[in-house]
Amino acid sequence: MSTKKLGEQTAALAHPPSFLGRACVAGHKEGEGPLASVFDEICPDDRFEQPSWEKAESAMQQHALNLALERAGGMPDWLFGGDLLNQCVASTYAVRDQTLPFFGLYGACSTVGEGLILASMVLDGDFGTRAGVVTSSHFCCAERQYRTPLEYGGQRTPTAQWTVTAAGAVILGREGPGPYVTHVTAGRIVDLGVTDTNNMGAAMAPAAYETIRTHFRDTGRSPADYDLIVTGDLGLLGSELLEELFRRDGVELSGCHVDCGLMIYDLEKQDVHCGGSGCGCAASVLTGHLLTEMERGKWRRILFCPTGALHSPTTAFQGESIPGICHAVAIDAAP
Amino acid sequence: MSTKKLGEQTAALAHPPSFLGRACVAGHKEGEGPLASVFDEICPDDRFEQPSWEKAESAMQQHALNLALERAGGMPDWLFGGDLLNQCVASTYAVRDQTLPFFGLYGACSTVGEGLILASMVLDGDFGTRAGVVTSSHFCCAERQYRTPLEYGGQRTPTAQWTVTAAGAVILGREGPGPYVTHVTAGRIVDLGVTDTNNMGAAMAPAAYETIRTHFRDTGRSPADYDLIVTGDLGLLGSELLEELFRRDGVELSGCHVDCGLMIYDLEKQDVHCGGSGCGCAASVLTGHLLTEMERGKWRRILFCPTGALHSPTTAFQGESIPGICHAVAIDAAP
Repeated sequence: MSTKKLGEQTAALAHPPSFLGRACVAGHKEGEGPLASVFDEICPDDRFEQPSWEKAESAMQQHALNLALERAGGMPDWLFGGDLLNQCVASTYAVRDQTLPFFGLYGACSTVGEGLILASMVLDGDFGTRAGVVTSSHFCCAERQYRTPLEYGGQRTPTAQWTVTAAGAVILGREGPGPYVTHVTAGRIVDLGVTDTNNMGAAMAPAAYETIRTHFRDTGRSPADYDLIVTGDLGLLGSELLEELFRRDGVELSGCHVDCGLMIYDLEKQDVHCGGSGCGCAASVLTGHLLTEMERGKWRRILFCPTGALHSPTTAFQGESIPGICHAVAIDAAP
Repeated sequence: MSTKKLGEQTAALAHPPSFLGRACVAGHKEGEGPLASVFDEICPDDRFEQPSWEKAESAMQQHALNLALERAGGMPDWLFGGDLLNQCVASTYAVRDQTLPFFGLYGACSTVGEGLILASMVLDGDFGTRAGVVTSSHFCCAERQYRTPLEYGGQRTPTAQWTVTAAGAVILGREGPGPYVTHVTAGRIVDLGVTDTNNMGAAMAPAAYETIRTHFRDTGRSPADYDLIVTGDLGLLGSELLEELFRRDGVELSGCHVDCGLMIYDLEKQDVHCGGSGCGCAASVLTGHLLTEMERGKWRRILFCPTGALHSPTTAFQGESIPGICHAVAIDAAP
């Protein structure tokens, strides 16, 4: 029997890895939102001086990664990365010039969580001293790939979310001052049959519910053990659904639950309907806001739960429902 | 310092994981090739009774996974999967009904190698007793996504490769009768500027060269230490390039080098130009042929090196070159 596996989906890290360097870079709209002050760099035109949106996304990811590497004070042994673009090209081209062993991930908007879990396990398994994770999303790339070209000027439905233009990078270390990754709960795929690609909060909420509930069961913890339970990008509707699902179990989450997709924009003023989404959403809120406030002592322990919708435009056209996934990472001021 | 990291890109597994269950399922054309007898199932029309090619690919992956799970005699703690489809949907929909924690990977045709590396590290890190890897590719999905719809009847260039319709699944165990994964060398991205998407062997050969060379340097081994060095899908031209690159270093690889893309089809008779490619190519040749022959004692030690081209149609249209990657896994009859 493994000594580190708890229950069905959770691992307790024997030697919790520490966050070392981190950085986040964002676009114009994100730079006008409530978290504007946390970004290391804000690009005024979302182009990052590149001739295409896809290259801009790679450049943004590169900026974030380079800054995180600088701050970590040493190169990682392994690098994990991913994004929303077909064949995950934003990450590939972003890390192409690095001479680092690279693992490409696809977990849709949950990718930063997947990366943190694998990086933590690899460090805890004694396979190196540092491991990096970098992810991104870009509104303009995502619109033309998943929905309609921007020039089309399509109307958005009330349940739609706005893909965040941002990249986040973190370097974890086997040793460090904290905060620490103490437990990881890898998600399983949950699909309750939602087919509306303009309502991804509803598609992902059951996955968030399953993973968070499993995390509690596997670790013996409850919401009271966390200062904050942070979902990735459920948005307004998905967050309500998640809290409602827990309420049916007699668990009140609303006091400690927040959602990165609701934190990154001002929903009243920024015309983003149900909130933000995208790999860069949870990644930039974690690296820019959550870890900073933990270091300042605002929160001692958080459960970071990025969520992803694992469909594609092709599967949607073929009438398939949207499978969701959520990965949870317990981050603690103490190891 | 880590006790398990060797050199820059390699990990030596302290407690080498064993192959437990494995299975491979293939399409019609593969079932007419030289490896026909190794497949557990051959689908006569490549449709797997599904209404679309994408659903057929998922079904094929499901068949392979279910069979491997059955043979492994127990469920894995973690499951890794990936494929070539946008948003890796073949894997997502294939594993949707499993209640297993799932890590989605994107390493193009190298995905089975990436999965084996991560699964091995997670088991060696004592995070569980079993871990699974499943990957696939399907000619018809790949053609319409990467090239032109089949109905278009496009001509193929002489350097083109044929995407293999196949899925392979393996379950690794912390304990088992072998063969064992003893060393893993994770690839870094290598891009020498090849832009011809119909010549992916040339784009991937430098990555294979870098990873295999790094593996030798990191482990102190040489080609003489292996009965076989098996690349994933360099095809005819890419294989020649790889051997030529080693020849410049004074290393003769041709005596022990084979390529899954050249093994799976009869190049004379099957009109596949430079050979096979796709995530399912290396995965099915490994699970169907290589491991079987190792168990029969034909080879004691092989270096399995799946290769991937990490571009997308969008990056190709934007004039970008094709980044390659290659992951190497040393498989040994003894732990």
